[in-house]
Formats: sequence, structure tokens, C-alpha cells
Amino acid sequence: MPFVYQRTVRFSDTDAAGVVYFANVLSICHEAYEASLAATGIDVKVFFGGVAVAIPIAHTSGNFFRPMACGDRLEIHLIPKLLQDSEFEIAYEVFLENQLERSVSNASTRHVCIDPATRKRRSLPAEVSQWLLQWTTRL
Amino acid sequence: MPFVYQRTVRFSDTDAAGVVYFANVLSICHEAYEASLAATGIDVKVFFGGVAVAIPIAHTSGNFFRPMACGDRLEIHLIPKLLQDSEFEIAYEVFLENQLERSVSNASTRHVCIDPATRKRRSLPAEVSQWLLQWTTRL
Amino acid sequence: MPFVYQRTVRFSDTDAAGVVYFANVLSICHEAYEASLAATGIDVKVFFGGVAVAIPIAHTSGNFFRPMACGDRLEIHLIPKLLQDSEFEIAYEVFLENQLERSVSNASTRHVCIDPATRKRRSLPAEVSQWLLQWTTRL
Amino acid sequence: MPFVYQRTVRFSDTDAAGVVYFANVLSICHEAYEASLAATGIDVKVFFGGVAVAIPIAHTSGNFFRPMACGDRLEIHLIPKLLQDSEFEIAYEVFLENQLERSVSNASTRHVCIDPATRKRRSLPAEVSQWLLQWTTRL
Repeated sequence: MPFVYQRTVRFSDTDAAGVVYFANVLSICHEAYEASLAATGIDVKVFFGGVAVAIPIAHTSGNFFRPMACGDRLEIHLIPKLLQDSEFEIAYEVFLENQLERSVSNASTRHVCIDPATRKRRSLPAEVSQWLLQWTTRL
Repeated sequence: MPFVYQRTVRFSDTDAAGVVYFANVLSICHEAYEASLAATGIDVKVFFGGVAVAIPIAHTSGNFFRPMACGDRLEIHLIPKLLQDSEFEIAYEVFLENQLERSVSNASTRHVCIDPATRKRRSLPAEVSQWLLQWTTRL
Repeated sequence: MPFVYQRTVRFSDTDAAGVVYFANVLSICHEAYEASLAATGIDVKVFFGGVAVAIPIAHTSGNFFRPMACGDRLEIHLIPKLLQDSEFEIAYEVFLENQLERSVSNASTRHVCIDPATRKRRSLPAEVSQWLLQWTTRL
Repeated sequence: MPFVYQRTVRFSDTDAAGVVYFANVLSICHEAYEASLAATGIDVKVFFGGVAVAIPIAHTSGNFFRPMACGDRLEIHLIPKLLQDSEFEIAYEVFLENQLERSVSNASTRHVCIDPATRKRRSLPAEVSQWLLQWTTRL
């Protein structure tokens, strides 16, 4: 079961070409990630403060099939996947609401868990394992 | 009756001081404006495209009383007010959800209706008058 | 003597109306502030980290006279002013390069110095007094 | 010869983790693209307005090796590459100034030229071919 996040395209998401600025598509996907963490009961303020543990993004990619305009209602489907003890990846599919047969965009982010002081890899905290269990699709 | 918009603070709203970047508070208020237009049935894509009529912001102000952090759930109360045939102002109060006795921020935007070709003032379109009627508080 | 900051309007500054999004004008002014601090020798990374002292923005305002488009070359003139031992205000004038007779926008930010732990007012640090001395216009 | 773009990290680029927000690294790379177009004499206002021809981004990717903080001076090296008559890709390397031996990030964007009315592919305009000639590295 993917996590589903609904989001209306805002004027500040757009650029002078009249559609969502490419990097803002990735920001909207990141919002879905934040909402999924909160849905698992994770305190996102503490989580993103990164004092005890930090899980920065090491890699991202995005494909943009069709433009999104101000006012468009989006639905982002998010599926995380454990890659290593210290690493996970998230796949995002972005749909126009009511047009779930064909995505307008997709994206991915890969996250590596580190100790913020040493910047060395460490294993994911328990709450993130919980989140992975909750939203990873099992076939 | 003000229009009420709910919004969770996102990681991309914050800055290295750990709280919402000042100009992003104004963006969040603008989102409330967009949501209020949509709630009146206005097509925001056409509205903000500004082909027939443009209603740019001529003035803004904001007061920041307390910081907002990632994950904070906000409630923005919006009240528009007609100033002239071609001009209106919006007052925004930003609250933390469940703490409506004291705002964390307030803001205003003043909008002037112009013909986009000549940039001369013109009267507000009917749908905006409708929106003003709907959300302006009457004592 | 004001501090002068040059900046080209970027695609990400614009919105679907084809011009700079109103809140981004304030961000561009804040960039001028950052550049002026660096020009006085202040380490902006430490400064904005806000560990020892924080100087958040308590108030902002902006007036938008004419639109700015992608590629426009701007010149921002910044003049700070001490208001109290713990407070200063910055006035910004935004010009199109080579059109310094008439600003396209102006803005202000008011900053209050606090202890980040207690959030109580405290006097401005010496380096900020230095910065005020350097960039405040004396008649 | 790559195009080289210099850029200081601004406070608005950062997030509550104290470093540049991942999607903003891609925006900074896009700024380098805009600056390279201007350096070839292309009017970026017309170019990004996309009335006659549009060249939207179809794909992007980014790798983030080390964090960038407010005030850091960056140098982005940009190299475009023609893929097809209607398509090109740009490779970006992001360095800290004076540390050109090891990049802190890299990224790519792939752009497809279309007719904005039909959204069908068309060949790149002459000025873009010119830009490719100027900045594509020849071995």
C-alpha cells in the first residue's frame, strides 16, 4: 500500500512558462515524504532537525511527462524501499487527481543515514524501520 | 466570516535558523488567498494567468511574532476588503492550530486590478466582487 | 553610502504571471542584506545559524511598482538604521540596472536581537554595530 | 570549455538542517544554465516565456556528496551535449570555490524542444545550436 498525499498546485510553485518549475516537483514529492513520516507518528520537527541522526538525500531523479498548472489537484503515491541497513529509496508517482491511469511525473530520492557529528553511516533508527514497514508495498 | 486555510509547515518552508523563512510566511498567506478564490468557484489557473485581467500585488506587509517549525499545523484566517472599484486588501492572521487565542504572525496584501496590456487600472471583474462578498466580514 | 547589490532575475524567481513572485522580491532584498554582512567581514554561516545570538525579522513591508522579468538585471540599494540598542531596520530600493531614476520596488525589514534560548531582547553584537556604522547613510 | 557560474549560497537556499535544501541545488544548476544562455546572447526573458518554442525539462538527476552552507561560495561547471535534433542534456558539477579537485554535488537536466501549441517535438532553434557549439567540450 503506497502512502497517498494530496496537494493543490500553488502559484508560488509555478514559473514564467506558466507551469510548475521542475525543481518544485521534487519539493512536492518531499512534502509527501514528510506527510508519510507524520502519518507513522514521527515528529518531523525533531526528525529534520537532525541533531541525533541525519538522513540526508544522496541522490534524486525526476521525469516530467506533462506540465502541471496553478490550481491543479495532484495526488502523489509514495513507496519507500530499504536498500541497506543505513539506506533507503523512495519512489514517487505524481498524478492529476481523477487521472490515475497515467502519471504526469515520477521521481525518486535516496537517503543515507549518518551520524551528524562524524558524517559516518549508521543504521536507520527504529521509527524509520517502522515507517518502511508501514508503507513499503509487499507483493 | 473569514476564510480559513489549513496548512502544515514543510521542510522547504524553513531556513537554517530552523524555522519558516520570513518571506515564506507571505507565500503561505498567498496560498490561503488562492484557496479562497477556488472556494468561490474561481478558476485559479485562468485567474493567475492574467491574460484578460491582472490583479498584481502592489503592497505587502508582515509581522512575525513567534517562529514556526517544520511540522507545525497552521490555520490562516483571511479577510478581504474592497478599497476602491479597482483595488482590495487582504488581512491574514496566522495561528498555530488549537492556539487561536494568539496569532504567530499576521500579514496583508493590497491588490490593484489592471488591464495587462496597458497596465492601467480597471474595475474588478464580477467573480472577484463575488469573492469579496463571500469572505468580507460584516459586523 | 548605501550598500549596492547586483542580481539577475532567475527563472525560479518568476511565477505563472511571467514576472517575479511578490514574496521573492523580499527574498532578493534579504540576499542584499546577506551580501552587506559579508562585505563587513561577518561570517554569514555562523550569523544565520543563530546559536549565540539570533536577529529574526519582526516586520517586513514591500511596495511593487513595476514587474520584473526573467533576465532583468537588478540593483538593490540597502540602507540600515539603528532603532534601539536591540533593533534595526533596513530600507531597500530595487532598481533595474541603468534605470536608477525610478525604483521598481522598495521594501523594509525590521530585525530584533534576541537570546535564542530565552527569546528575550539583548543588545546587538559588536559586528552588527560595525555593519550599521559602515552602511548607514550619514547626511 | 565548460561554462562557469559563480554563486554564493543564500539563506533562502537553506533548510532547517542548516544546509542547502536538495531541490535548491537543482535550481542553482538551472541558474547556471540561464547564465550560459545569456552569455551566448540569448534573451532569456523571451526564451523562457516559451511562446514560439518551448524546451521543457523532461528529466533531471542529482547527486549530493557534501552539504553546502549559507555563505559558501560555489562554482558550477556546465557542459551541454546534443542528444538529438530536438533534445540536449546538460551536465553540472558543483564545487566549493577553491576546492575544484572534488565536487560537492553534480546534476543533469535533459531538455526536449517542442512546439508549445501542439506539444510535439521540433528541432532546436538556431540560437540553441549556437549555445551548444559554444559550451560543448570538444576532446
